[in-house]
Amino acid sequence: NTHRIAVIAGDGIGKEVMPEGLRSLRAAADRYGFAVDAVEFDYASAEYYLQHGQMLPDGWFEELRGFDAIFFGAVGWPDVVPDHVSLWGSLLQFRRSFDQYVNLRPVRLLPGITSPLAGRKPGDVDFYVVRENTEGEYSSVGGRMFEGTDRETVIQDTVMTRTGVDRILRYAFDLAQKREKKHLTSATKSNGISITMPYWDERVEAMAAQYDGVRTDKFHIDILCANFVLHPDWFDVVVASNLFGDILSDLGPACTGTIGVAPSGNINPDRTFPSLFEPVHGSAPDIAGQGIANPVGQIWSASMMLEHLGEADAAAGILSAIESVLAAGGDALTRDLGGTGTTSSLGATIAAAIADR
Amino acid sequence: NTHRIAVIAGDGIGKEVMPEGLRSLRAAADRYGFAVDAVEFDYASAEYYLQHGQMLPDGWFEELRGFDAIFFGAVGWPDVVPDHVSLWGSLLQFRRSFDQYVNLRPVRLLPGITSPLAGRKPGDVDFYVVRENTEGEYSSVGGRMFEGTDRETVIQDTVMTRTGVDRILRYAFDLAQKREKKHLTSATKSNGISITMPYWDERVEAMAAQYDGVRTDKFHIDILCANFVLHPDWFDVVVASNLFGDILSDLGPACTGTIGVAPSGNINPDRTFPSLFEPVHGSAPDIAGQGIANPVGQIWSASMMLEHLGEADAAAGILSAIESVLAAGGDALTRDLGGTGTTSSLGATIAAAIADR
Ligand SMILES: CC(C)[C@H](C(=O)O)[C@@H](O)C(=O)O
Ligand SMILES: CC(C)[C@H](C(=O)O)[C@@H](O)C(=O)O
Repeated sequence: NTHRIAVIAGDGIGKEVMPEGLRSLRAAADRYGFAVDAVEFDYASAEYYLQHGQMLPDGWFEELRGFDAIFFGAVGWPDVVPDHVSLWGSLLQFRRSFDQYVNLRPVRLLPGITSPLAGRKPGDVDFYVVRENTEGEYSSVGGRMFEGTDRETVIQDTVMTRTGVDRILRYAFDLAQKREKKHLTSATKSNGISITMPYWDERVEAMAAQYDGVRTDKFHIDILCANFVLHPDWFDVVVASNLFGDILSDLGPACTGTIGVAPSGNINPDRTFPSLFEPVHGSAPDIAGQGIANPVGQIWSASMMLEHLGEADAAAGILSAIESVLAAGGDALTRDLGGTGTTSSLGATIAAAIADR
Repeated sequence: NTHRIAVIAGDGIGKEVMPEGLRSLRAAADRYGFAVDAVEFDYASAEYYLQHGQMLPDGWFEELRGFDAIFFGAVGWPDVVPDHVSLWGSLLQFRRSFDQYVNLRPVRLLPGITSPLAGRKPGDVDFYVVRENTEGEYSSVGGRMFEGTDRETVIQDTVMTRTGVDRILRYAFDLAQKREKKHLTSATKSNGISITMPYWDERVEAMAAQYDGVRTDKFHIDILCANFVLHPDWFDVVVASNLFGDILSDLGPACTGTIGVAPSGNINPDRTFPSLFEPVHGSAPDIAGQGIANPVGQIWSASMMLEHLGEADAAAGILSAIESVLAAGGDALTRDLGGTGTTSSLGATIAAAIADR
């Protein structure tokens, strides 16, 4: 039972947390009895861009499509490549080309992590953000007119399709139905964004009619963000458009203490192409190169990847190792969590805990 | 010295908090020596829509344009009128027709209000969100194609103009320059929204070059929302597009305890048309009719209105009355603040405190 994994570390702290993600992945392979065939690629990075003038080699699609999954670090180095060039030339390209239309992001307050919200304890916050990942506000349609003049006008289209909206809603409703609370919240803004968002609402209503057992509600994105802070315990599965999902899946982890531990899966549920797993955090130029980045987001992403690959026990093993190391706390943790540990010392501690399951 | 004010209470709790806003306004007029000529209008409400099939009478523009300011409650009653119909037919129409291109929203942790953020005290959080209020993501351009089929496609344009972007940036930079910290933060998402947001960034850079004394930085909206929760003390003036400003100006007040107290000004700085002042909260159908809504957002909006009308002492008097009543706390406060007061009892307490300044 061998899983072929394409490994792309990317930029900045991506290069520092990836080795720890791999260490835990290998520890899980040994402990749970499967093999990992990991092939590393240096593209999707600013360094590669500097040498080649593009983020990816021409043959990337054929090269990567045969893998079982892509394990991704972080990309972006704005001093060298503008963000929209590096992101549209790599990560956003993968999501779209490999039709990874679900971006699944757990928001969970873990033991040992202090929430910035007063009085919230582990167990109080435990939900999923299900983000549409291929269309919506992230579009490539638009442009500039009357450039450089006072009439300069810049237009960008938001594009929603029935196919795109319905399939993300179906995934979210299916997920809600499997969970205990069976509660789905839709993020909208149909009072202000008056063409696409009322359409989103209509499709939510149509889909809700097919899921009798799921309690459904909706909030406009402004008050929904407010409620993440005021009432994080209200949520179970939150489904959102590309942009709204992006916002909610950074805000959620912030409410649970740190974005450094949050993982995500860019999932192609039809399995026509590989899915991609990556921490929610970015390349963090401000702390890159110091060996202090928190590796938990990358390691938790390995757990999500294994879940997707059918290794449920190994996935659970990694998550429980993370939880026990965080709960034990102390100096083992990285600085952002109040410890004195480094990226690699915390990574080693978690890998050892996996071996010990 | 008489100020002519158009009063539009709107729907739901708008009708309950407006009398308290007026009571404080009149108390301030008596105390600080000016007159208020307040004319009430019943339009921009679901009731009006039911009777007339539209939100506003045909002559609204001519009728309202002569006033010195518009004092607004809240609009929206989705059981009767879809939100996008009621909002585009009233509030959003006012903002655009009267060219109220600045939406100014203070985010301040007040004495007596408990922040949901652990360990934050009054003084720790004190900044402004400056929101573009007439263009951007709130556009009327777009539509549906292939309706009712599997190919159904819905498109909505985001439209940014040099005029629109530059004037909001100028307002925000001017404001930052007047404040002690002289710090401006721009909300962007140029890594994902790859046409309009890079343009926004360019204009911010161009404008920053004209304001030497202002320290400028930018965050993508996802991590910016996270930082409102993690580091609310980092901000001084935050400038944002229409949608991002909408989100940030609900999230900010949530971080300072309650949206019920937050005010906003929809300002036409050129004074070619009246500006409009309203609480940040909506019509709140869930608590409407019970007399328990918090009137502070409406009363604080009266203070912002008086500031705009040149009554700086009266504006400061209202704000200090609000602060002293909140700081005294106890049963006088409404339920959302832990008291047992009603909309009108809290309103009366604040009006009395204004008279006592
Ligand atoms: C009601 C709605 C259209 C409005 C907006 O999005 O502008 C409101 O949320 C606000 O912030 O004033
Ligand atoms: C880097 C950026 C383009 C990306 C996004 O907006 O999708 C990131 O914020 C994320 O959430 O994965």
